[in-house]
Amino acid sequence: MPTYTAPVKDIQFVLHEMLNVADSDIPGYADMEADFTNAVLEEAGKLTGEVLAPLNVVGDHEGCRLENGVVYTPTGFKEAFEQVKEGGWTGLDMPEEYGGQNLPYVLSTAVGEMFSSSNQAFTMYQGLTHGAAAAILAHGTEEQKNKWLPKMVSCEWTGTMNLTEPHCGTDLGLMRTKAEPQDNGTYKISGQKIFISAGDHDMADNIVHLVLAKVPGGPEGIKGVSLFIVPKFLVDDEGNIGARNGVSVGNIEKKMGIHGNSTCVLNYDEAEGYLIGDLNKGMRAMFTMMNEARLGVGMQGLAAAEVAYQNAVDYAKDRLQGRDVTGVKNPDGPADPLIVHPDVRRSLMDQKSFAEAARAFILWGATMIDEAHRKGDKDADGLVSLLTPVIKGFLTDEGYDMTVKAQQIYGGHGYIEEHGMSQFTRDARIAMIYEGANGVQALDLVGRKLAADGGKHVMAFFELVKNFCKENGEDEALKDFIEPLKKASKDLQAAGMYFMQTGMKNPNDALSGSNDFMHLFGHVCLGLMWAQMAKAANAALAGGASDTEFYETKLATGRYYMARRLPATGMHLARIQSGGDTVMALAAENF
Amino acid sequence: MPTYTAPVKDIQFVLHEMLNVADSDIPGYADMEADFTNAVLEEAGKLTGEVLAPLNVVGDHEGCRLENGVVYTPTGFKEAFEQVKEGGWTGLDMPEEYGGQNLPYVLSTAVGEMFSSSNQAFTMYQGLTHGAAAAILAHGTEEQKNKWLPKMVSCEWTGTMNLTEPHCGTDLGLMRTKAEPQDNGTYKISGQKIFISAGDHDMADNIVHLVLAKVPGGPEGIKGVSLFIVPKFLVDDEGNIGARNGVSVGNIEKKMGIHGNSTCVLNYDEAEGYLIGDLNKGMRAMFTMMNEARLGVGMQGLAAAEVAYQNAVDYAKDRLQGRDVTGVKNPDGPADPLIVHPDVRRSLMDQKSFAEAARAFILWGATMIDEAHRKGDKDADGLVSLLTPVIKGFLTDEGYDMTVKAQQIYGGHGYIEEHGMSQFTRDARIAMIYEGANGVQALDLVGRKLAADGGKHVMAFFELVKNFCKENGEDEALKDFIEPLKKASKDLQAAGMYFMQTGMKNPNDALSGSNDFMHLFGHVCLGLMWAQMAKAANAALAGGASDTEFYETKLATGRYYMARRLPATGMHLARIQSGGDTVMALAAENF
Repeated sequence: MPTYTAPVKDIQFVLHEMLNVADSDIPGYADMEADFTNAVLEEAGKLTGEVLAPLNVVGDHEGCRLENGVVYTPTGFKEAFEQVKEGGWTGLDMPEEYGGQNLPYVLSTAVGEMFSSSNQAFTMYQGLTHGAAAAILAHGTEEQKNKWLPKMVSCEWTGTMNLTEPHCGTDLGLMRTKAEPQDNGTYKISGQKIFISAGDHDMADNIVHLVLAKVPGGPEGIKGVSLFIVPKFLVDDEGNIGARNGVSVGNIEKKMGIHGNSTCVLNYDEAEGYLIGDLNKGMRAMFTMMNEARLGVGMQGLAAAEVAYQNAVDYAKDRLQGRDVTGVKNPDGPADPLIVHPDVRRSLMDQKSFAEAARAFILWGATMIDEAHRKGDKDADGLVSLLTPVIKGFLTDEGYDMTVKAQQIYGGHGYIEEHGMSQFTRDARIAMIYEGANGVQALDLVGRKLAADGGKHVMAFFELVKNFCKENGEDEALKDFIEPLKKASKDLQAAGMYFMQTGMKNPNDALSGSNDFMHLFGHVCLGLMWAQMAKAANAALAGGASDTEFYETKLATGRYYMARRLPATGMHLARIQSGGDTVMALAAENF
Repeated sequence: MPTYTAPVKDIQFVLHEMLNVADSDIPGYADMEADFTNAVLEEAGKLTGEVLAPLNVVGDHEGCRLENGVVYTPTGFKEAFEQVKEGGWTGLDMPEEYGGQNLPYVLSTAVGEMFSSSNQAFTMYQGLTHGAAAAILAHGTEEQKNKWLPKMVSCEWTGTMNLTEPHCGTDLGLMRTKAEPQDNGTYKISGQKIFISAGDHDMADNIVHLVLAKVPGGPEGIKGVSLFIVPKFLVDDEGNIGARNGVSVGNIEKKMGIHGNSTCVLNYDEAEGYLIGDLNKGMRAMFTMMNEARLGVGMQGLAAAEVAYQNAVDYAKDRLQGRDVTGVKNPDGPADPLIVHPDVRRSLMDQKSFAEAARAFILWGATMIDEAHRKGDKDADGLVSLLTPVIKGFLTDEGYDMTVKAQQIYGGHGYIEEHGMSQFTRDARIAMIYEGANGVQALDLVGRKLAADGGKHVMAFFELVKNFCKENGEDEALKDFIEPLKKASKDLQAAGMYFMQTGMKNPNDALSGSNDFMHLFGHVCLGLMWAQMAKAANAALAGGASDTEFYETKLATGRYYMARRLPATGMHLARIQSGGDTVMALAAENF
């Protein structure tokens, strides 16, 4: 059975040596001293490693089941959910007035990685609740907030997000679910929603569905969509649970992975709903927290890669197969461990150098979200908005590939379900799809974010890279980092230039390169993260840190990324610059 | 439910316009006139599209079950297997004296693609039988051949290959299964074999296991391994089935995919076995047919990509979502079909341009195998031996990626099992592992094949590319092909040069780049295939072919590959040239 050990030290390194969070003037950051975050992370590490990780395969094997309209979660989920609630893990970054702890988003993100790594399907029950609560927090009336939030923050009641319908996912303007206004100010919601994660289950007393629907007579398409609170059970003014509302589970989907999460078809039949936010502004309300939600999914790409990597390393050290070509390493054994083989190391280094830089990227992104929310910094908001599709799209694409690589280390033992490596890839696959499929992320990046505010934010990013390179260009200890970063950043700028020159004339030229641009951008970001981590590691070594091995390992892992992963930027640039002609050449019937 | 339409026209194009098989002097090729191969392919297309493809999801959902020691295949498999046998599809390339049709391997490979595309798990029952029969054909005594082959060629009895044990897969020298010689010349086989595809089932009267085992007292390691025939039921001299032999099913593995195939743990307990080939030469006997077996698995990468692509295209044309940014294409509908979006096309073109070139590569490889076997051509044997790890490793890695891309087109509908897209990826995943995991293929390529016969075969490959470029360099109609091919081939030569210069000094420098070299080599091969197909398409157009759309589509698809896929070679070269230092930098405990 796979195991999980929370990478507390690596997270602490990013928080305190690269991002220096405790020195930041973002409100709440001064409290994040290393001892404090370490205590939080250690505690979360214990819970996730000892309680949630062992349930991961259970969830996969058993799945959820629907019996007489009731959804049952896998063995042990309910008890574990109680432990999570009791530990106060469900409202880390929520306001104290609703029972949360008001901790910075960056710290809840660090904890979130552990939850995702240990048990993605399980973690989604609280993850969706968090998303729904965040929308109510941002757009609900005081009454709505007081009524729903305390129980959602504690996960006594969980939440869901209802967007997709059978005929529409990305293009929500096609939505058919209706909300008929009633005389008492409520609405009757009718329609079918599909792919509703955590849509129903037996772990909470109530479920608060956030549902997008159209009020008849409103504007056509996406402009006529509103957002509603639709509880599974009606709740009276004192907060007491009453009658069952008109929402029922049509089915639980059979999926490739995340079996432990109940992905439901929900049928709404004149269910009572309450408008949240403004009429016909449902998309805005649903997407207010988009950067956080998408960063959270990008984090799942990292989380899957991390746990798969950990198990691949264990197996590579343990499994004896073949001999080191440069000389026997395990003379007393019948063979050497897999880890002696260069191609096994190549794969492990791909994984390791990805996971560590992805973590830095995500936590850096989370600090910008904190800066935007807690300080009202518009530049931080602009930059993280630009980077969000990269975080979501690139990290989930790559994260998935890394789980495939980890699985490959196991050979045939990775293909059978016994060792759990197949589950990591099957679970990781969804992150490329939900919360905006990665093609939509690439479109968002190239079609919208790149030119937002006159291109100000992408210029800020380039400036940031340029300044880092300038400030550290003379540092001999960083030369393996600065030169490759400069080269990669030049490729990114050339791609951006190409889009600017051609995009107006022929949008297809730009959009044909959107996926490549997202990946090119992602590599530059991870390259920047490695350069910054290398600088931090050098500083620690220069400062006489005792754990030299830790810092030397950081530097060696970073050098690998710069030498072996970053050259991908040239390929992406060449593809982008080849334009849209070859992409768009065929008539649809000739495919 | 997914569908499958055999790509008869594309196969015919490769056979007759690119490879010109009927003009070849390879014995048996003259019979392969276009009408004849078309008839065979059409018939195979009907069977696979109408009978096997609909059973694919059935096999996935039901899987195989073990009850009281008996393995049951999914509903409908048995009846379909009867149809396959009756149609004579099981012995296409087998000698007539054993009931086969003695057709060239290239044609059975073309048919094999259809079988794999339509139902990989099902096809493995006959695929393993073919492999076992081929080994008996090559190494069995006349008596053994007469006794076992006729029933295996007809698949009245099926076959299996037993290599892996719990503690050893790649490194078979660690094998523990024993073969004790008996006074009557037979052996008693005892031990446990795992991952035995088609290991037991209810579709044949007998199963002929080919088992690797060690005769006590023989040489250590791999040099002490012999190959044995071990039937499920003993067979007397008249061919009558007798008592059950000492082999039983310990378990059926739960796997990520190919659920319709029974992957068994087989326990041998003093089972009666018959030595095949020479004592202690079991590996040689097992691997005689290695090029064919590995080419067959590479073909599975293509087969999975092809069927997944077909369904992705259907969905992309059908599913309405969003609007074409350059102007509405479906004004009467609520939205435009997915296929208008550049990033969807990028993905579909990746898939299409891969599948068509991979098919050409495989069929070209198959002609070389025919040339080696039917004409005894040593150069053909050398070249195909060099290319075999590329065919197996590169095409299964890429084929898998293509199924992931096809699945992505479906968005959330690709993640649920209902549409069958998840199955294509789950089934395709195994091809990267079995028949030598892809890391072993890369090792075989760089560590063995590259320098084989003094590097003669890789030089022959370069010569072939150079000559093609030289002969066609002035052809204006091929300029989009020749230049990129030259550039890619130069990258490949530079990588080969790097290995030659560093490999002797430090093998880790070469082996760290083995995976990249395999992929670099693969791209050059597919680039060459596209250049040759483009030439054939131009010739057809110049010759006044009526179906201009077909040939124009070929050219456009090829141009896409050259412009958008081939630039990967530069990235692989850069990684290779970065050497082994960053790959090997960490001590094992620092992973």
